Amino acid sequence: MDKTAVNVTEYMQAMGARARAAARHMAAATCGQKNAALLAIAEQLEQSRESLQSANAIDMQQGQQRGLDAPTLDRLELTDDRINAMADGCRQVATLADPIGEVTDLAYRPSGIQVGQMRVPLGVIGIIYESRPNVTVDAAILCIKSGNATILRGGSESINSNKAVAACISRGLEQAGLSADSVQVVETTDRQAVGELITMSEYVDVIVPRGGKSLIERISNESRVPVIKHLDGICHVYIDRDADLEKAINIAFNAKTHRYGVCNAMETLLLHKDIANELLPSLVERYVAHGVELRGCEKTRAIIAMNAATDEDWSTEYLGPILSIKTVDSFDQAVEHIARYSSAHTESIVTESYTRGRSFMRQVDSSSVMINASTRFADGFEYGLGAEIGISTDKLHARGPVGLEGLTSQKYVVFGDGHVRS
Amino acid sequence: MDKTAVNVTEYMQAMGARARAAARHMAAATCGQKNAALLAIAEQLEQSRESLQSANAIDMQQGQQRGLDAPTLDRLELTDDRINAMADGCRQVATLADPIGEVTDLAYRPSGIQVGQMRVPLGVIGIIYESRPNVTVDAAILCIKSGNATILRGGSESINSNKAVAACISRGLEQAGLSADSVQVVETTDRQAVGELITMSEYVDVIVPRGGKSLIERISNESRVPVIKHLDGICHVYIDRDADLEKAINIAFNAKTHRYGVCNAMETLLLHKDIANELLPSLVERYVAHGVELRGCEKTRAIIAMNAATDEDWSTEYLGPILSIKTVDSFDQAVEHIARYSSAHTESIVTESYTRGRSFMRQVDSSSVMINASTRFADGFEYGLGAEIGISTDKLHARGPVGLEGLTSQKYVVFGDGHVRS
Repeated sequence: MDKTAVNVTEYMQAMGARARAAARHMAAATCGQKNAALLAIAEQLEQSRESLQSANAIDMQQGQQRGLDAPTLDRLELTDDRINAMADGCRQVATLADPIGEVTDLAYRPSGIQVGQMRVPLGVIGIIYESRPNVTVDAAILCIKSGNATILRGGSESINSNKAVAACISRGLEQAGLSADSVQVVETTDRQAVGELITMSEYVDVIVPRGGKSLIERISNESRVPVIKHLDGICHVYIDRDADLEKAINIAFNAKTHRYGVCNAMETLLLHKDIANELLPSLVERYVAHGVELRGCEKTRAIIAMNAATDEDWSTEYLGPILSIKTVDSFDQAVEHIARYSSAHTESIVTESYTRGRSFMRQVDSSSVMINASTRFADGFEYGLGAEIGISTDKLHARGPVGLEGLTSQKYVVFGDGHVRS
Repeated sequence: MDKTAVNVTEYMQAMGARARAAARHMAAATCGQKNAALLAIAEQLEQSRESLQSANAIDMQQGQQRGLDAPTLDRLELTDDRINAMADGCRQVATLADPIGEVTDLAYRPSGIQVGQMRVPLGVIGIIYESRPNVTVDAAILCIKSGNATILRGGSESINSNKAVAACISRGLEQAGLSADSVQVVETTDRQAVGELITMSEYVDVIVPRGGKSLIERISNESRVPVIKHLDGICHVYIDRDADLEKAINIAFNAKTHRYGVCNAMETLLLHKDIANELLPSLVERYVAHGVELRGCEKTRAIIAMNAATDEDWSTEYLGPILSIKTVDSFDQAVEHIARYSSAHTESIVTESYTRGRSFMRQVDSSSVMINASTRFADGFEYGLGAEIGISTDKLHARGPVGLEGLTSQKYVVFGDGHVRS
């Protein structure tokens, strides 16, 4: 036991040291080299379809033996479509503009120096995720394009698939003349590896955990490295007194039913009392026809029968076909409810009122605040980031969908001509 | 003892809850209100000169009795000039543009929604600093202007001064119709208060520690709240083979001698071997005439006599009239030395070579990278930030001098017209 412990520590420390060294090379890599690597990885994935799928078959078989549930097995499987999607992802990221080296706001100061900011990689990014082999590629290519080195730690059930995917990434990097150490997959399933990864702050600059809320909370609490984290999405739509009712119904329906198990789905609908009578019957009919269970506050249930919402409902991310509905007396009450119960992910107001729309945008403190649009738009691709490593519910560094720019920092650059301070 | 412990916890928790409530009001405050508060605080400080100085006299007397050293007592003293400077600081921050609510990059997406980013306050900022009462004002006014609430914890030796300053700030806030709870000064000198402040993550969004390296390291290690930190400044100037020698001498002299006890002073000078012979005699003469102790590598000492630099010298922030000098064989060796020993604060190259200048700007990974300018320019005012709460040596969130923008975040804003995801 003691021996294993030392070995995992040594294994992770050595991996960290290699990542730190590789990060310097990646920071200096040209856009051309990085794109060449992405295209080479795409080809490697397509050419290795058989070895990827035979490695994946071992994981699938062991997963079935261990009794993994159907959704987990589904996410674990490397189907032909998923391998195609991974390769497409590489090619798509290759088309994105290189954020690294971009200089902004370069301006002359009264002293005569020119000062601007240059975008630079963060360094080494540790990514911890569930047993989804395609995430190995998705995460790796964003780190490559943003000039970072990365250490990837996927769920233990996908270990064989991840090793096979990692081999493709390594070959692609080497073909482009980049260091294979810039993307390393943790090849031990020992849980201690996670503990090492999130505490070796000399080698890792930021941790991005992907997975359930409890995993992310645990990592945030134990990490000695900054974490870009995404907790829950308790998203609200507020239908204002001055809403266009057709838009309101479409948005409220789409925000709940377009997909259930996603963080940007609406979990609570807030209705102004003046339009509740007119709106609720047709809205409820549509939800019920779609199999959505409704739980209402007292005022809502006085208009139309449904289950009662408890205080716990307002704080629950259902991630399923359930919706809580609250009828409010005023705009202010809606904003108060959001301030109290929202997870600060995404909220939307439906209104034609200029004044209340403007107030909502300013007063609601969530990573995405919308007017007359479905919460389902809170997404890196819909926002034009071109890619997404996750959605941050933090306020520091990155907030909302995190694309390439979220994996970078900015340093100041100063151009002088012999200038000294006087 | 136990009873005190409970009291400090309760005291800090109550302060945190008030700060959290005040943060919502501050986020909604108009630019006009915030500026009015800043101007009112300036007046309060000027009108309270006597009470400020009598409170300060108690701290000074107790400090002398406790045997505080002269520099500490100097920083503790509230002279007329310092009170004027605090009031001027308020008026100057009032002239700065309000960062809050600014919307950038608003653009239409293919789906028809418009997406942009709106700048928002971070929320509640905890600031921990030494016994310098003027920092209480400096920190408070940056938090006010950036729409944040703040909890200030200054050194215990300045407790009476801080209370007097806090009273001025409270009156100024109230005159402008803002909540006095938006700036709170911790009025207990119990050290446990710091421990509470850096762990109450439900009430505090970010900690900014100001002070010595060991204090900041301890806070970073123990904090459960993200920390914007500034560790040491081991800054380098590299004089390249193609340097203009007059510029080189001026910059090298200014970077070391303009002020000694500051983080952006040069601690190590790197010289290319091809110009060392020509450069060193006049440079050394100037340093020695100025009372700077020189410590050189072997090659440097072969050219001109001086003390020997040990390996420890390359890792030392002298903060005094000492300079280590290393003669290097190549540009690459200079960059390697910086990568190994720099604290990633500020580095400057002196060169007329376009190619090496360009390489240095890209390859050196420090919060400020300069060409042909003194490291002493690494400063929020010199960079045009208008104010500075500190210099971050982190990469996440804020890097380099931190002004108002570093105390803010951005949320996504989405404008639609009934748009739903399909």
